[in-house]
Amino acid sequence: MKAAGCPLCEASGGASVFEGPRFRLVRADEAGFPAFYRLVWTDHVAEFSDLSRADRHLCMDAVDEVERALRTHLRPSKVNLASLGNAVPHLHWHIIARFDWDPAFPGSVWAPAQRNAPAAAIEAVEALRPALESAMAGALARPGNRTPP
Amino acid sequence: MKAAGCPLCEASGGASVFEGPRFRLVRADEAGFPAFYRLVWTDHVAEFSDLSRADRHLCMDAVDEVERALRTHLRPSKVNLASLGNAVPHLHWHIIARFDWDPAFPGSVWAPAQRNAPAAAIEAVEALRPALESAMAGALARPGNRTPP
Repeated sequence: MKAAGCPLCEASGGASVFEGPRFRLVRADEAGFPAFYRLVWTDHVAEFSDLSRADRHLCMDAVDEVERALRTHLRPSKVNLASLGNAVPHLHWHIIARFDWDPAFPGSVWAPAQRNAPAAAIEAVEALRPALESAMAGALARPGNRTPP
Repeated sequence: MKAAGCPLCEASGGASVFEGPRFRLVRADEAGFPAFYRLVWTDHVAEFSDLSRADRHLCMDAVDEVERALRTHLRPSKVNLASLGNAVPHLHWHIIARFDWDPAFPGSVWAPAQRNAPAAAIEAVEALRPALESAMAGALARPGNRTPP
């Protein structure tokens, strides 16, 4: 179920946090946004509604686990969730911890930057990432999150 | 479970398509995007992960119904889903039919406009909206979409 030429079929799309049979979690390298994750569905499907109901629930339970870990470990101003895929139509969820000091807040991460993120604030988040990502991987590795109920 | 001063507790947020006890669906008035909907959770919660598992599934089943109706009736280039809430932290899902002629495609709707949408294309979508919105309301009114299982 791979598509030739699809960037998310042919490469991971970021730094691996969790790899399972149905989906993976990667950290994206987006300047100014130190906790920008993507949950990438393994099969090449374009739209959320291409999934079965069981798979949609499996997928969003995983998104929820990632969001909970972000909230617990980073206490962000807000969490942003988005499945767009206009450029890369392979189902993936952006799960992004937003901070009031980040380049675009309160705009979306796709809006023009309003400021430079302070280096000390970014470094503080980066220091928390190992524990954060360990917690994410642990939560996602639970059997219920890997196969439909 | 309302919050004083919250725009989505105090007003509908758009033209009503469906109103239920747990959530409502409204059409947003966003220039150049003629099929831009918002599913607004009734209770004032900020984050998706503030919902119970049953409510998260209920919510995303409804998002899925809206997406399916958009695909069936409009055959968009892509559907975009997003829960951001940086400016209005009351849980709402943007559910947007995107077209390759719309102002920002393939960028997000929050990215700078790249073009003016052709009036004829917008009018063609607007002509399909009554049937689309009737189908959305019908799908969302099903008992399973109104109360947790």
